Amino acid sequence: MTKHADLAAAGAFSASEKAGLYKAIYNRRDVRDQFLSLPVSDAMLVRLLDAAHHAPSVGLMQPWNFIVIRQEETKEKVFRAFKKANDEAAEMFEGGRKSDYLRLKLEGIRKAPLNICVTCDRTRGGKVVLGRTHNMNMDLYSTVCAIQNLWLAARVEGIGLGWVSIYNDPDLREILSIPDEIEIIGYLCLGYVEELYTRPELEVKNWSRRLPLEELVFEEKWAG
Amino acid sequence: MTKHADLAAAGAFSASEKAGLYKAIYNRRDVRDQFLSLPVSDAMLVRLLDAAHHAPSVGLMQPWNFIVIRQEETKEKVFRAFKKANDEAAEMFEGGRKSDYLRLKLEGIRKAPLNICVTCDRTRGGKVVLGRTHNMNMDLYSTVCAIQNLWLAARVEGIGLGWVSIYNDPDLREILSIPDEIEIIGYLCLGYVEELYTRPELEVKNWSRRLPLEELVFEEKWAG
Repeated sequence: MTKHADLAAAGAFSASEKAGLYKAIYNRRDVRDQFLSLPVSDAMLVRLLDAAHHAPSVGLMQPWNFIVIRQEETKEKVFRAFKKANDEAAEMFEGGRKSDYLRLKLEGIRKAPLNICVTCDRTRGGKVVLGRTHNMNMDLYSTVCAIQNLWLAARVEGIGLGWVSIYNDPDLREILSIPDEIEIIGYLCLGYVEELYTRPELEVKNWSRRLPLEELVFEEKWAG
Repeated sequence: MTKHADLAAAGAFSASEKAGLYKAIYNRRDVRDQFLSLPVSDAMLVRLLDAAHHAPSVGLMQPWNFIVIRQEETKEKVFRAFKKANDEAAEMFEGGRKSDYLRLKLEGIRKAPLNICVTCDRTRGGKVVLGRTHNMNMDLYSTVCAIQNLWLAARVEGIGLGWVSIYNDPDLREILSIPDEIEIIGYLCLGYVEELYTRPELEVKNWSRRLPLEELVFEEKWAG
């Protein structure tokens, strides 16, 4: 019985609709190398960004912006910022782990036809934001939810996405003219893909492995 | 042409599979009041947590834990922590905004049969984590991706989810015995729902409104 004009019946989805969501979740990969050069149309880009824009946000703050990058010149600058940071990162690993690290391809900045930098405007909605009063990170987390929506939407469209996190923040900020009060959340590489790894690439390449879910679940209180 | 045993063909999904993903994204709501008392089975809980567990994570770190809360006594304590913080939050708003705030129901802690506290173990995987070397927030963001997966999976199963962020961190930490090195990311309320708002509840209740997507998209660099 509907009590309010804006409330509508909402039950479980059909089996095929459910399958679509779970297939996206289980087959989503962090893509670094499988990108095709085929361009992503503006209509498709809007579809993906609109999925991101319908993420949950604290106090309906919608703190995100999307900087869409297609020019080779910009990508080349971002790649150089990645390269500098990645060389620094390699030095943090020891022995065989360092050589293993250097063998991994951790970005697809220039290969992907489309890059998107996703940011969080911490000033949007004023100083006091409903739901952010006791956790100032909530706007960052809302922006991450938008990225995950975008990632899943890309997957169902046959578009791969890789999240690049290896750069020094001031470098990317300068390349993209991002003001100080704006937080950079993620730098994403997108493009159509013909094939993907069936498991996480870091597992395929023996860097790490999937943990058993049952070890991560506690009842009623922390029990680690 | 597959070049590697772990690579498989990966194109766009079928129309009905795509529809399932987009329907979940567009019909997902932050639920505070529509919870039914119908219990969520253990099998269903595992299905939802496994969807969360297949989120992307930096360096395949999988930093998340899930504390599953079903006891009334625990929920009552969490509700009291919420109530204290919510009274503090109301004082931060001025004039009519304060009375509007107090009229909103911002949690479903006791009404929802199932609560889940999602945490991030910042020590998992050692001190140097691939991809976190230049952004120490990446493990927090991975955990948020897990929450968004869980949220979408819940939606297709007819289960509503509300993310509670209004509490003082030490209060929740004490109630759930969470150690200091573990970051609390979100406190989630879950339960079956018969109906949901067709738009964000904060929009229905005239607290805020959806921003036009086109205002949030820039080309090649920041242009705000």
